[in-house]
Amino acid sequence: MSSFTPSLDKLIEQFAKLPSVGKKSAQRLAFHILSMSETEAKTFTETIEKARNSIKRCEICCNLTDSQICTVCSSQSRDKSVICVVEDPRDVIAIERTHEFNGLYHVLHGAISPMNDINPEDICIKELIMRLGSDDVKEVIMATNPTVEGEATSMYISKLIKPLGVRVSRLAYGVPVGADLEYADEFTLIRAMEGRKEL
Amino acid sequence: MSSFTPSLDKLIEQFAKLPSVGKKSAQRLAFHILSMSETEAKTFTETIEKARNSIKRCEICCNLTDSQICTVCSSQSRDKSVICVVEDPRDVIAIERTHEFNGLYHVLHGAISPMNDINPEDICIKELIMRLGSDDVKEVIMATNPTVEGEATSMYISKLIKPLGVRVSRLAYGVPVGADLEYADEFTLIRAMEGRKEL
Repeated sequence: MSSFTPSLDKLIEQFAKLPSVGKKSAQRLAFHILSMSETEAKTFTETIEKARNSIKRCEICCNLTDSQICTVCSSQSRDKSVICVVEDPRDVIAIERTHEFNGLYHVLHGAISPMNDINPEDICIKELIMRLGSDDVKEVIMATNPTVEGEATSMYISKLIKPLGVRVSRLAYGVPVGADLEYADEFTLIRAMEGRKEL
Repeated sequence: MSSFTPSLDKLIEQFAKLPSVGKKSAQRLAFHILSMSETEAKTFTETIEKARNSIKRCEICCNLTDSQICTVCSSQSRDKSVICVVEDPRDVIAIERTHEFNGLYHVLHGAISPMNDINPEDICIKELIMRLGSDDVKEVIMATNPTVEGEATSMYISKLIKPLGVRVSRLAYGVPVGADLEYADEFTLIRAMEGRKEL
């Protein structure tokens, strides 16, 4: 016997499959599940099922939502002339946290990456182009990740959008506020130099 | 909108309640759950339910098991004259991994800790004493954790057992094999000195 009882082993195995959960953490989580009260455990599994059944993509911006249209897209107070394009729903939260952007979003759900077999048609680019048909949209801000894939996706989309007469911009590259210059990598510093502003 | 859609927020909240899962990890886990296939998600929740329904305590040693009596207790090849007392089912696995101990176990499911309101009657001490009624058991090895609580539990149990004429021993304290002496704490070194053996 160098393992637990079968159902416990299976439970540990399930947790070990989750991202960044190692064998020890999986054990700890499994034991925690066993120590939960009946109600807690029921809430846990039911929340998983409910979330999977009710969460879908907003028909306009592709962000995750419980309803057909997400709260941002259906809000009357948002500026409908500017769309910020991000890779992931978590990026929307990050930008919302700044309380500085009042436009709409578009969530691509990934970035173009031929190495990982993710092509333009695998992410929500088509849905973005369709939104630009109306005259409302004046500017698209590309806020994809500052990575090779994010950059390539950004370039690809801007080439599609420009002919439609919509302004396309992208987030500035530079040194992060509050960071130590000494620790900034060369690429960031080069971009920061290129993007320098007159004082 | 500085949060996700309600069902997703609830899902993240559920994961954030798990031990050593922070807010960021909870988000990552929740997104992973949403990205699972229908079958994977079903297996995940069903494994949780099945584990909770089928895992119980062995009627003899209190270790976790799917059946009435665990595999160790029902094995014919184990030495029934010695019982190793541990705090947690994970400790059984740790000792089994040595392939050196062939006796039986007893899992206390905790240690006496007045500070946390855990009294002798809250852990499986009664069940252990009942096992000593038969003449089979010759020795009880205390393998509780080398902590104040583990130590106290060990002392408490040994006082109950000794009058029954059963030998009680406990794991040796000392420097861990392969460790650097420089990094051993004072208490461990004191115990290692006390327990020194002639060469």
